Amino acid sequence: MSKFWSKRTHELDPYVPGEQPKNTQYIKLNTNENPYPPSAQVLQSIHDASSGDLRLYSDPNADELKQAIADYYAKYAVEKNNVFVGNSSDEVLAHTFVALLKHDQPLLFPDISYSFYPVYCRLFGINYQMIPLSDHFDIQPEDYSRTNGGIIFPNPNAPTGKALSLQTIETFLTQHPDSVIVIDEAYVDFGADTAIALVRQYKNLLVTQTFSKSRSLAGLRVGFAIADAELIAGMERVKNSFHPYALSREAIAGATASIKDAKSFENNRQKIINTRERITPLLEQLGFSVIPSSANFVFAKPPAGHTAEQLYQQLKQQNILVRYFNAPRIEQYLRITMGTDDEMDTLLETLRLILAD
Amino acid sequence: MSKFWSKRTHELDPYVPGEQPKNTQYIKLNTNENPYPPSAQVLQSIHDASSGDLRLYSDPNADELKQAIADYYAKYAVEKNNVFVGNSSDEVLAHTFVALLKHDQPLLFPDISYSFYPVYCRLFGINYQMIPLSDHFDIQPEDYSRTNGGIIFPNPNAPTGKALSLQTIETFLTQHPDSVIVIDEAYVDFGADTAIALVRQYKNLLVTQTFSKSRSLAGLRVGFAIADAELIAGMERVKNSFHPYALSREAIAGATASIKDAKSFENNRQKIINTRERITPLLEQLGFSVIPSSANFVFAKPPAGHTAEQLYQQLKQQNILVRYFNAPRIEQYLRITMGTDDEMDTLLETLRLILAD
Repeated sequence: MSKFWSKRTHELDPYVPGEQPKNTQYIKLNTNENPYPPSAQVLQSIHDASSGDLRLYSDPNADELKQAIADYYAKYAVEKNNVFVGNSSDEVLAHTFVALLKHDQPLLFPDISYSFYPVYCRLFGINYQMIPLSDHFDIQPEDYSRTNGGIIFPNPNAPTGKALSLQTIETFLTQHPDSVIVIDEAYVDFGADTAIALVRQYKNLLVTQTFSKSRSLAGLRVGFAIADAELIAGMERVKNSFHPYALSREAIAGATASIKDAKSFENNRQKIINTRERITPLLEQLGFSVIPSSANFVFAKPPAGHTAEQLYQQLKQQNILVRYFNAPRIEQYLRITMGTDDEMDTLLETLRLILAD
Repeated sequence: MSKFWSKRTHELDPYVPGEQPKNTQYIKLNTNENPYPPSAQVLQSIHDASSGDLRLYSDPNADELKQAIADYYAKYAVEKNNVFVGNSSDEVLAHTFVALLKHDQPLLFPDISYSFYPVYCRLFGINYQMIPLSDHFDIQPEDYSRTNGGIIFPNPNAPTGKALSLQTIETFLTQHPDSVIVIDEAYVDFGADTAIALVRQYKNLLVTQTFSKSRSLAGLRVGFAIADAELIAGMERVKNSFHPYALSREAIAGATASIKDAKSFENNRQKIINTRERITPLLEQLGFSVIPSSANFVFAKPPAGHTAEQLYQQLKQQNILVRYFNAPRIEQYLRITMGTDDEMDTLLETLRLILAD
């Protein structure tokens, strides 16, 4: 506390990311990173961008990257002015909250979801209501039938990994034509259908994605949004009132190369999906209840006689990091990121020993 | 305009950066970039960081970079918890406005200054008053003797290039002990004394700097702030409510290498100072009035019979970009960034021909 802090700063309850240990002894299954590195051609593009030209500003509009993303989604008639890019999808979400989700009526989002949403609301002074998931951890359109100033949820949801169909998302879009509906697709590439397919049809839809998970670039910090040009124009107004040069030369070059490198992207995400499908029944054999996941993680409840918190600690002692949330309704679950198959085998073997103990 | 935009978004008046043409035909003297590239060791550090580890998040606390900055300023007893880092000094300033400059009383800043300050105020709903510079374009402490919620100005000021002494800055600090005083030192390395020397003495002082100008890294996007640990803690609260992983792996590595590479930094900034000192009398010989500059640019008024706007256009036709501001009191000046000596000779020769015409 400080007399120099603004009132708002005193009220903040900042986001706490998963542990990022400095040493590398851990098998890191706690922050949904991709176990496979970016491709050689992505790294080469970043190297090429790290030249003497770094003395010059990057393109404030990141046109090259926006065009590459538009081209990638050309089948959905996405054009460059439907694309917004930022320094991580967290930043893209932050600008979305300011530009499109701050209204007199409360913003709605699920009560078990990305825990950053209420943090943004506090930072930007946005009135919000959290809507509990169903008993089976589902996001149900009928629960959102109330006056609102916007709706946001991840698809697949985090940390449950459960996905909604595009049909259900259309129900949200048609039932709330005067609200912006934001679909946060950080994990969509691992098994859900992207709502980008609906962007040209619904002027109230904004979809966010990230290069951090399916594209193996968490360390580069790039995210993007796709929406009707009018929504994107609002986002640009906010971004250009915050920092016009959001992306470095490396970020623009690396993300552009990544979006053009469909082959290694498809290859890696399929490997991760295969690992998840292989691991899920094996966890169930160990007595875990595993929620069917469409993401690069599973949300799993340990067998009777073991608490999630205790198991998290025991795994950490064995140099395996998973994510434990000390929060109502989910304090009996662990979120386990899909690592390489070798890493997952080590996890399973370690769990076997702990549970047999 | 859109019914989906927030009220705030409608009210924004976004910042307009200097032209960043995609083609490279221009001698670019318009956005205060450094004419000399970053050193080989800085580029090597960025290359090394662009490895398979990009799949992993960067350090959200950027400890390595903070420690390097603290070490660099160890002579002023700066420690790691006195350092804040962000994705450009624009972002560092944005967080500063939210964390420390939003209070009931108005924020004060000069009326000829970095034109981003009122943009932040609109974005964050901060009440502000602009204090006119003196007739000689000076920032005078006596003009700020009024109730306020904070004071911010660049030193040297932009676009005038005029610097204040540390003694004058201490006058601000002692006259406003309950306000945060922010000194924006984007250009300090080109000829002013850094107020970082005063940080351990004044709990109400925050100093911002950037890697974009004197460190030749505009394309990497890194800025920082130094202040009492309590002010920094407020900044961290805001940053961790916005995007915890602000800096990429490349940004952390490149900025750290740059701050450790004192030799090429000293060499480049001295070359730029020498160019400025050589060019100023030559511009005066051509009939320009040149404000004595402590920055990497000069603010110069063309000789009678020529308007700044016209001259800006004429130079652009000759493939030389300088900055023209269509704003009261400064619409008769051009801001000319120091390029290489060859580039400045071309500028002088071109001006000679235009003025003789």
